[in-house]
Amino acid sequence: MSEPLKETSFDQDGNRSDGRANDGLREIRFQNGIAPHATGSTLIEWGNTRVICAVTIEEAVPRWMKYQNVSGGWITAEYSMLPYSTLSRKQRDSSRGKQDGRSVEIQRLIGRSLRSAVDLEKLGARTAWIDCDVLQADGGTRTASITGAFVALALATNKLVTDGLVSESPLINEVAAVSVGVVEGKTLLDLRYVEDAAAAVDMNLVMTSKGEFIELQGTGEESTFTPDQLQEMLAYGKTGMDRLNEIQKTAIAQG
Amino acid sequence: MSEPLKETSFDQDGNRSDGRANDGLREIRFQNGIAPHATGSTLIEWGNTRVICAVTIEEAVPRWMKYQNVSGGWITAEYSMLPYSTLSRKQRDSSRGKQDGRSVEIQRLIGRSLRSAVDLEKLGARTAWIDCDVLQADGGTRTASITGAFVALALATNKLVTDGLVSESPLINEVAAVSVGVVEGKTLLDLRYVEDAAAAVDMNLVMTSKGEFIELQGTGEESTFTPDQLQEMLAYGKTGMDRLNEIQKTAIAQG
Amino acid sequence: MSEPLKETSFDQDGNRSDGRANDGLREIRFQNGIAPHATGSTLIEWGNTRVICAVTIEEAVPRWMKYQNVSGGWITAEYSMLPYSTLSRKQRDSSRGKQDGRSVEIQRLIGRSLRSAVDLEKLGARTAWIDCDVLQADGGTRTASITGAFVALALATNKLVTDGLVSESPLINEVAAVSVGVVEGKTLLDLRYVEDAAAAVDMNLVMTSKGEFIELQGTGEESTFTPDQLQEMLAYGKTGMDRLNEIQKTAIAQG
Amino acid sequence: MSEPLKETSFDQDGNRSDGRANDGLREIRFQNGIAPHATGSTLIEWGNTRVICAVTIEEAVPRWMKYQNVSGGWITAEYSMLPYSTLSRKQRDSSRGKQDGRSVEIQRLIGRSLRSAVDLEKLGARTAWIDCDVLQADGGTRTASITGAFVALALATNKLVTDGLVSESPLINEVAAVSVGVVEGKTLLDLRYVEDAAAAVDMNLVMTSKGEFIELQGTGEESTFTPDQLQEMLAYGKTGMDRLNEIQKTAIAQG
Amino acid sequence: MSEPLKETSFDQDGNRSDGRANDGLREIRFQNGIAPHATGSTLIEWGNTRVICAVTIEEAVPRWMKYQNVSGGWITAEYSMLPYSTLSRKQRDSSRGKQDGRSVEIQRLIGRSLRSAVDLEKLGARTAWIDCDVLQADGGTRTASITGAFVALALATNKLVTDGLVSESPLINEVAAVSVGVVEGKTLLDLRYVEDAAAAVDMNLVMTSKGEFIELQGTGEESTFTPDQLQEMLAYGKTGMDRLNEIQKTAIAQG
Amino acid sequence: MSEPLKETSFDQDGNRSDGRANDGLREIRFQNGIAPHATGSTLIEWGNTRVICAVTIEEAVPRWMKYQNVSGGWITAEYSMLPYSTLSRKQRDSSRGKQDGRSVEIQRLIGRSLRSAVDLEKLGARTAWIDCDVLQADGGTRTASITGAFVALALATNKLVTDGLVSESPLINEVAAVSVGVVEGKTLLDLRYVEDAAAAVDMNLVMTSKGEFIELQGTGEESTFTPDQLQEMLAYGKTGMDRLNEIQKTAIAQG
Repeated sequence: MSEPLKETSFDQDGNRSDGRANDGLREIRFQNGIAPHATGSTLIEWGNTRVICAVTIEEAVPRWMKYQNVSGGWITAEYSMLPYSTLSRKQRDSSRGKQDGRSVEIQRLIGRSLRSAVDLEKLGARTAWIDCDVLQADGGTRTASITGAFVALALATNKLVTDGLVSESPLINEVAAVSVGVVEGKTLLDLRYVEDAAAAVDMNLVMTSKGEFIELQGTGEESTFTPDQLQEMLAYGKTGMDRLNEIQKTAIAQG
Repeated sequence: MSEPLKETSFDQDGNRSDGRANDGLREIRFQNGIAPHATGSTLIEWGNTRVICAVTIEEAVPRWMKYQNVSGGWITAEYSMLPYSTLSRKQRDSSRGKQDGRSVEIQRLIGRSLRSAVDLEKLGARTAWIDCDVLQADGGTRTASITGAFVALALATNKLVTDGLVSESPLINEVAAVSVGVVEGKTLLDLRYVEDAAAAVDMNLVMTSKGEFIELQGTGEESTFTPDQLQEMLAYGKTGMDRLNEIQKTAIAQG
Repeated sequence: MSEPLKETSFDQDGNRSDGRANDGLREIRFQNGIAPHATGSTLIEWGNTRVICAVTIEEAVPRWMKYQNVSGGWITAEYSMLPYSTLSRKQRDSSRGKQDGRSVEIQRLIGRSLRSAVDLEKLGARTAWIDCDVLQADGGTRTASITGAFVALALATNKLVTDGLVSESPLINEVAAVSVGVVEGKTLLDLRYVEDAAAAVDMNLVMTSKGEFIELQGTGEESTFTPDQLQEMLAYGKTGMDRLNEIQKTAIAQG
Repeated sequence: MSEPLKETSFDQDGNRSDGRANDGLREIRFQNGIAPHATGSTLIEWGNTRVICAVTIEEAVPRWMKYQNVSGGWITAEYSMLPYSTLSRKQRDSSRGKQDGRSVEIQRLIGRSLRSAVDLEKLGARTAWIDCDVLQADGGTRTASITGAFVALALATNKLVTDGLVSESPLINEVAAVSVGVVEGKTLLDLRYVEDAAAAVDMNLVMTSKGEFIELQGTGEESTFTPDQLQEMLAYGKTGMDRLNEIQKTAIAQG
Repeated sequence: MSEPLKETSFDQDGNRSDGRANDGLREIRFQNGIAPHATGSTLIEWGNTRVICAVTIEEAVPRWMKYQNVSGGWITAEYSMLPYSTLSRKQRDSSRGKQDGRSVEIQRLIGRSLRSAVDLEKLGARTAWIDCDVLQADGGTRTASITGAFVALALATNKLVTDGLVSESPLINEVAAVSVGVVEGKTLLDLRYVEDAAAAVDMNLVMTSKGEFIELQGTGEESTFTPDQLQEMLAYGKTGMDRLNEIQKTAIAQG
Repeated sequence: MSEPLKETSFDQDGNRSDGRANDGLREIRFQNGIAPHATGSTLIEWGNTRVICAVTIEEAVPRWMKYQNVSGGWITAEYSMLPYSTLSRKQRDSSRGKQDGRSVEIQRLIGRSLRSAVDLEKLGARTAWIDCDVLQADGGTRTASITGAFVALALATNKLVTDGLVSESPLINEVAAVSVGVVEGKTLLDLRYVEDAAAAVDMNLVMTSKGEFIELQGTGEESTFTPDQLQEMLAYGKTGMDRLNEIQKTAIAQG
């Protein structure tokens, strides 16, 4: 019996082995209402990456806002990989007694990104808890979390409007995120796991539907990248972002 | 605008307010393969209670088995309520830095129950990790976890057989669980949240398809129950168990 | 020099090796006032199992009762095995940084059991802290803890009456606990360690002196039990319970 | 009804209110074998202070000894106040998730003190775990712990000799400890709680029966003391130590 | 007596209130050898921000490298703010029992950045621990940490060469970091605290002396930024970087 | 190439190998203002031991003082060894998740010692946080911490007077600390690491400039010491203390 061929990023003709164009996105679907007790929720399926995104609105603000006399509301995010989301089981944070550093970094990014989508004054004295739990990981869990969390947040704020708790939507930006990277010298949009593991450069873009940046994180892990590579990655990212905004709009419209 | 009527266990005629007979089960459905990276997984929907049950087989045994020179395999369970599973958001264990006592108690019950389903020698030097993550809680999360975990475990052990890792299935018992209780003097099968909160007695039964007991836990929180009530609860439990075994069989057969 | 014979549950005639009838209890003694700073305390010696049971009444209730506006008092339990209670030294919870799961499960059981003994309204806005510290473990530490804790609780509530802090005793049930099990096919009452380790089924009964159940926990660890075995275990348990109530009464009367 | 008189250190004639001479010890008793699973154990009752002292010999040494290639054995101590040992209940360390600083400091003192009693080479590749659990606290819990732990250690090492595990006793010093202090300008031996709380200076002496020092800790909390006061405290301490060595000898002889 | 004027970013003419050009750096000094037990160390003073940067070479690699059979060495970083580095005292992580999220995020950034400076194969089977402890914080502690850590790392690797432990320097890139931001619509290089607190956009650049990027992190906290603003920030960053490389070279040359 | 000679306490003539008299101190220097955000700070360099001592005055008192209705202020200390202060890198407490026992013991000593220097009533309702972070460790870190912390505290309280927050200095004692020990039978003042590691007895003295004791801690780790040795150590300590008070006065005068 022969060994299974190890999956690679490119086929022998130098094309992406899953058939996408270098600036192509994986297929993305939303299943809204996956967690009915949340104010808004969706299951984002982005290729083989699946993340439960739930937004729970609490009628209270964190203590530090009271102490510092800050008005308006707050948005905070928690990110976790379910233990069976990875190929070999990942130990729970609660068993380890603390979160791993990568999760801390990602949930801080999610929180900052979504706060940029909202007028916190209009949100009122409320906290929007954003929970992103990865059900299956195949690259891009942080960008899927942000993109899905925006849909869940939009569903939740629409509910606030419908329930008469706020007079108008506190949303001020439409937010999505996508990864871009350089693999074997080629710039690629939306890396799946096999590409991400081989990437010399990995960049995550969080942008608004108006084409403005919220967050930009490019990393050359044990590598570097040139200004020209940066510009090409920015261009690919813009392409992906335009498509993502469309998909989000459709998902939100379905309620 | 008038206050919404508070939900009660019984309607004005003394019938269960969701229309079930006193020994009736809620509707139960399985969605297998919810977490494809696990060896076996299912989403059990039991009325409004939803639990992700995933079984991951690891080719290793815990250290204590090596130290104590115990042969065969092991089964261990972890139970967690996702923060958006409850009506008001539940803080994550990883944020609190430790698991709450109730979760510890439940995951120990799940582990014991499923170990009774398996011949650990036939499992071989493997660990079956059972993860139960509650997506929505409406009473009976522990019985749904056990009932769903058995389905996921059967899917996982079937895969071991298919992949040629074991020569025959290590399953020796078909395991399911159901709750019974006493509410306003009436014995009820399969309590949903509103009934559970009003119950004077709450009993959880874990049984095999042959009608034998694996675990029996009856509790009169701030209350007591008589031997006659015990016998009636056991009878109701048996009724439910027979139905559950059928539903599980169907779900497992779908693969 | 020859190896010492390993202790077994039964002698060669099939009788219990410590000479007890199958439905016989070990010898039980109480040493009240072991911890004079507690409101009520006793050292229960149950065969070779010894547990310090102390009840401290605090003139305050937990925060959650205030938040939820619950009147009356509360009872909470903590259970710990002293490191020298076992044959090989057990690491302290405080060194491990957290309690082990078994202790969490047991102290929740103790708390529920004793709350059923008390009219929490009559206790007034007080917390009864129940501490059970195992000095020596030879099987049945949880049932000894509950049985001893009831004696300590009765001593403590008697003191509340004597000190004029409550007008009448808040006790409404007399509570005791005992184990029953199946070892090599025989039903046995009150398992000591060697029997417990060999048991196919282990059941703990918490009952009132009126013969009603507070808690019933039967477990077939890697095994199952039949409805007939369940009924026999219940009958043995009742026998033990009647004797325990007498012993407790005598101990409480000694003050 | 009149207020109970608050207890004071001295009566109106300036004598100690419990009738002792200024250089007098409280009554001390030992109850050996309180924890039979330990290798050696005793309950020391020193006035109203009671401490369970247990020594468990483990046939292994800590990892750091192996890494650093240190021969011989090790002695380590753990100290804990049981929650009901104080007038108002003290929260368990395991509930707090960590030991309090005072306990850490005391158990390090106990460990150092007892290591000076033993030839660690003669102990062999073993660890002596010393556990001191305070059952009732009325001042001097650390000196009672050391004095009682020495008795338990002597019982344990005698057992090693009897069992043929060591050819001769590894004990090289007889160790006891006592407190001395300055209260309202008077030097007092062996402070009980009411005296300790009023003391300007508090000194703990750990000495051998040959009159040599193992540890000397004098503290003027929010106060200072003169060289003359130091010399008087040392003299009082010597008086107490001679008496303690006698009491220990008698206790050890009883086995 | 009048209130002190609150410090602002700009004076009334719209110039930076500390007199710098918009693309000017604060004054930077290095005091090498601040921690002589480290393999290499420096105190970087960057305006009023001061960070102790120490690199300790350990002759061992992390366990995961052995398990995964990865050759070469490793670089890991820890970042901490000393409690007196901020205007109001910051609680120690060890008192809180865990690191705060911001510190976790920063130390991961420092580790990634410095790993890009080194050929890990040439480092050999060693770990370089990079410790950055902030003595005084006035904005830019992460960029000062990276810039100072590179100097400490160069000193440490030079020592490896001098001591004959490696045959040639494992350094492959010269690494520095600087912040750029947008304050009141103006792009500014190297933000001090007052500017950082007022910034709509904050970007950190980690680059090599060849003008390539290692890491790029731009954040619009509760704000966004345009592609044009991004390009201007990149240009300002390049200006700063060139100056930083010179200052580092001089500091390293001093040994 | 020959092995470097291992450093020893004494040269071949029996003199201290660093040339000091047996009752001589190492050279001591202070660098005030090392941490400008603290209310008072100094870097004490005591031979090769270096400790950052910072005092931060907070306009609040701990909660327990409010609960217990204690007037005046409070002083609390934290002690930590920076990871690069030792020859092999010491793991951070925050990575370990808790402080090690030695640090707990030392910081409690520092806190007690400095509280004796201050009239807490005159300090007013303030907390003085004393932070001692060891930059380099070569023996005597606890005595250097106390001696340096007093200088930092004097600078901080002088600032309180200058700023008009207190009408007169709350300082009532001038406090310093020094170690004495017995090495190879010789009494030595102020042990550096090589001497400390070889010492049979180690004593730390905390005294006032009036020659009174605040704290006295003598330890014979795996050893004992005689009354005569105690007296000689006390005499040497007094000699050191007189010199230390002079050095402190000079350092404080420099402001």
